[in-house]
Formats: sequence, structure tokens, C-alpha cells
Amino acid sequence: MVTTELRTDPITGRIVAIDLGPFKRKDDFALEPVRLEDPPAHCPLCEGREADAGAEILAWREGGPANVPGWSVRVVPNRHPMLRIEGQMETRSAGLFESRDGLGAHEVIIETPIHDQPLHALDVDHLWRALWAWRTRIQDLKRDSRFSSVAIFKNHGRAAGARLDHAHSQLTAYPMIYPALAEKLRGAARHLSKSGKCIFCDLVAQERSDGRRIIRDHDGILAIAPFASRVPFETWLMSRNHSPRFEDATDATLHALAAALKDVMARIDWALERPACNLVLHTGPLDGEGDAAFHWHLEIVPRVTRFSGLEWGSGVHRNPVSPEQAATVLRS
Amino acid sequence: MVTTELRTDPITGRIVAIDLGPFKRKDDFALEPVRLEDPPAHCPLCEGREADAGAEILAWREGGPANVPGWSVRVVPNRHPMLRIEGQMETRSAGLFESRDGLGAHEVIIETPIHDQPLHALDVDHLWRALWAWRTRIQDLKRDSRFSSVAIFKNHGRAAGARLDHAHSQLTAYPMIYPALAEKLRGAARHLSKSGKCIFCDLVAQERSDGRRIIRDHDGILAIAPFASRVPFETWLMSRNHSPRFEDATDATLHALAAALKDVMARIDWALERPACNLVLHTGPLDGEGDAAFHWHLEIVPRVTRFSGLEWGSGVHRNPVSPEQAATVLRS
Repeated sequence: MVTTELRTDPITGRIVAIDLGPFKRKDDFALEPVRLEDPPAHCPLCEGREADAGAEILAWREGGPANVPGWSVRVVPNRHPMLRIEGQMETRSAGLFESRDGLGAHEVIIETPIHDQPLHALDVDHLWRALWAWRTRIQDLKRDSRFSSVAIFKNHGRAAGARLDHAHSQLTAYPMIYPALAEKLRGAARHLSKSGKCIFCDLVAQERSDGRRIIRDHDGILAIAPFASRVPFETWLMSRNHSPRFEDATDATLHALAAALKDVMARIDWALERPACNLVLHTGPLDGEGDAAFHWHLEIVPRVTRFSGLEWGSGVHRNPVSPEQAATVLRS
Repeated sequence: MVTTELRTDPITGRIVAIDLGPFKRKDDFALEPVRLEDPPAHCPLCEGREADAGAEILAWREGGPANVPGWSVRVVPNRHPMLRIEGQMETRSAGLFESRDGLGAHEVIIETPIHDQPLHALDVDHLWRALWAWRTRIQDLKRDSRFSSVAIFKNHGRAAGARLDHAHSQLTAYPMIYPALAEKLRGAARHLSKSGKCIFCDLVAQERSDGRRIIRDHDGILAIAPFASRVPFETWLMSRNHSPRFEDATDATLHALAAALKDVMARIDWALERPACNLVLHTGPLDGEGDAAFHWHLEIVPRVTRFSGLEWGSGVHRNPVSPEQAATVLRS
């Protein structure tokens, strides 16, 4: 008989139901694996089709002009942006309802010129350049004082919401603290006022002393299966040292993160047989407001379970694989 | 050019990004439509297979013994429960981490004895009996003082998380206020302390005076496309009169709700061509704590968009169809 434990995430307070039974075979929950659906001939992100993707905001090139082949990582505006640079900052009010313009930035980081090359197939130096592009874009956008926070995410595979197969991530800059970050900051601030310490620093210390949920721990980057994992094989990567904002990460830290990300993604790809995945980078508010309480961290969310009425309705995620089991599999 | 508006839900404070461009054709976002995948021969919920579904907790029968054919609605324990009646109430603590037993109730309401009969194909009297079963089960479970809240949800179609095709809903009773309800109650309490009024009563009044988001308004039951709809054609059904708890709804109210639910579900089924859907019933805490501030309400969530890194990462839902457009289509 499978018993279930309700676990509380120490940062957000969210509750997940973890099944503590024997390890599930991936057949019990795997959804559509990732497969290529767009032929390269129609892909706007491929090398040689720079005009289709849009004028580049940033690129890693070995010399040569912009907007032509010869790049390894390239950043362009999103062609169907959710947020735009033009708009009013003001909130509009009508009775109970508040709204505002979709002001912000929405960019696409094309991680490779090659169509059929997922993130974890890039060599570490190349993956580093993608992280360099993330960092550089945040550094640039924070000069616009209208923006308060930046989230970077990646949809890998149709089941994870990707519309294009070609490896890319997306950057969104908001005129406020976006809701998921606000929730984390509230929890972190609570912990800071209670204990005087950063909750991520305390989390790193507790997980390293416990060990059961550690997936990888090299060169200052810790990869863990979080205690209240929402989905099978959810993984968080973070710096072992106190590091609130991603834009301040050193080249060496980004190199260690690139190596850890490649390694962990390859292990997840093996364990779940090419699952669809989301990546999410959370970094502290651009004005430094969370600097004492918060760490930037990168969440890996394999999409092998369905979001059902349980999650929509109760806000409780049910996870059929415990993080302790997932970490054991991923370490092996 | 599509522009986007960031809207704030007045109850939860959550933010959605609504595309305000021309109406999207459903081809732009429709996912897998609902189709029958289980042959009836393997369905444990069909009439004649009562032993497979489990011993009945409640049934609507025209006389005759339990656990045999002759029922129109039947309630049984979930065979793979997330929550169980046995367990400790206490929370366990280890450093930063808190957990507790998965104590509670997890039941299945089989809405019809017939395999191929979706909810909106039931006649109103039959649908009323399913709602009667919801109400009766909540009335019974609230006598167990360990339970604080009950959520009822339905997964219709594989894309909505259903594992069986046969029409059924699920009831979960929790030893605490479940997170999604806690979030709503916080917003409702804030509004009550500020204005002295129930936020749902104020919402009903504002929507009825505005009219743009009303889908149906008959016999005391209002169906609206919520201002900050998370997905295309999201719909909320609620009583026009102040009604905090579903277990106190009268037979007449349940009859009006059954008629509204059948009508709205049929319209959504037509407009989106058999979409997968989740239903969620939220009702006030069992101890009456939310009685001044809250209404029970039934959320219909069509599953025609993908949950991507945007939603996971930022907590912002992007909705390609405005609720004003959805209400116009559903009214027609």
C-alpha cells in the first residue's frame, strides 16, 4: 500500500503530496517524450535564417557583422511577446478590477545555431555562452529603471509548452516583482527576520549534512531534489555560497553551473527517457531588495505528470516519486 | 499587433496576461480533444462491475441492495488515494522541513452507470443527483472534526489528467485549509475588513451591472468568464445570493446549478470542440470560519493551452482569449 506524506516547501510554504511507496517505473507516469516535429527547413531559429528570427540584441560571435551566420548564441526579441518595452507603468482600476499594460521585455535566447542539438548536448564552453547571454541581458535590462525583476525560462519539448524544437530559452522582465518570486521572497524574508539568516544558505547546509537529496555537489554548485518536489525528478541548482543575483555571478561560477546543468540534464534525460522539461531561473529583485535573504537558483521541472483538477483545484501537487528516490537514481 | 494586458484577480491577487488581439481560432490553441480510450470491457466504473469500483459509501438508487446494478450515481473510495482516513494529525519537523501524514478522505463520485456519457450529456435531474452526492458527502465528512476543508474536482479527458474515461469526479477532505482555498480566504478576508462586505457578493453585483463577462444568469445562478481568466473560456458558476458553503445549498439551488452547469458545459464543448476540462468546487471551511467573506463557487477550466515555463516560473498565466471574447462566444 502506498502511503502519502504531505510536505511543506520551506521557502514558499506550498504543500505537495509525495507517494512513499516503491519506486515507480517511468511507464507509470511518462508522457510524450521529446521528438523533433519541425523540419529544419521551416525553423526560424536555424543558422542562415537570421532575418526570420529578428534583429539580434546580443550574440556570441568570433568577429564578423551582426545578423548573419557565424554565431554560437544569439538573442532576439520574441516575435509574439507577452511584454513590450512600450507602455504605461500606471495601474488602471475599475471597481474590484485592476489591470496594467503588458510593459516589460520578452526576449529569446537561441542556444545553438544547429537545429537538432538539445541543451545537454552542447559542450560545456558552449553552454557557458548561453548562461553568459542570460547574465549579459539581465545586466543590460536592469539599467531600465522601470523593471523590477527578471525571470528566464526554457520550454523543452511540446509537453513542456515549446512551440519550436530548436533549443532556446526566454527572458521576461517585469515592471513589478513577478508573483512566483514575490512568494519566495516573502518566505525568505520571514526566515531572515526570525533567524537572521538567508534561508537558501540554511537549506544548502541542511541538505549537505543530510545528503539524501543531493544529486551533485562540485565546484561550489549544489544540485538537489527539493524536499517538497512537485514533480518526479524536480531538481534545483544553486550556488553553495550566498549569491542573491545571477547578474553578479562570476565567469567561474557560470562555468561550474554550465558543467552541473549539462551533467544533471543528461542524467534526467537518461532516467526518464527524453522527457519534456522546463527550466526556470529565479534571481533576486534588480534593486537588490532581496540581497540578504535570497539566492538565485535554477529549477529543472521534468513534465512527466499531468496537471489535473487536483493541482488546479487544491493547489496541492501529487508527486509519485519521492525526491530521495529521484536523487538516488540520478546519482547512480 | 496583439497587445497584452496584465490583470489582477481581485480575490487571489494572481496576475494573468490577457492577449487583447483579434479572437483566436481554436486551431491556434486546441490540444487533444476528448476521445474514449478505455473500452467499456475494462472500465471498473461501469454498471455491473461494482465490486471492481469498491464498496459504496453512498448511492442514488430506486430501492434494492447496495453494491449491485440499479444506481444512477455512486460514491466509492479512491483506489489510489492521496489521503487516507488513518494517520496522525501531528506535523513532523526536521530543521527547515515540515511534513505530516496524508490524512484525509479521497472519494470517487461515479456520475453515471453508462460508460460513454459525459457530464453535460446527463439530463438535469441526473446531474442534480451528482451534485446531491457532493453535498451529502460533505455533510457527512464534516462530522469528522479532524477535517477542515473539502475540495471536489473533476478531470474530463486525458489532457485534463483523467485516467479513466467514465464520467466521475473526486472529493478530497483535508486536515487543514488546502492552499488554494487559503489563498482565496486571505483575499476575501482583506476585502471584508476593508469594506465590510463579501467580495463575491460585490463581484456578482459588479459583473451584473457591467454585463460583458456574463455567460448565463438564471434562477439565482450566475455564470461568468472571470476578469483574470487563466485559460481560454474559464468559467465560474456561483450563487447570486450570499452562500458560503455548498453543503448548505438547497435542493432548488442545486437544481438551478445543475441546469446552468449542463448548459455552460455544452456551450464550451461546442465552442472548443470537445476540449478536455477540469471542474473544481471551492466551498468555505467546514467550521464556518469564512462564512462572512466567501461564496462557494464552481470553476470550469478548459485545458486547451499548455502549462509552460512561463506559468511554472513566473506564476503568470498567459491567456490568448480575453474573457470578454469568450463570454460573447458562449452567449451566442
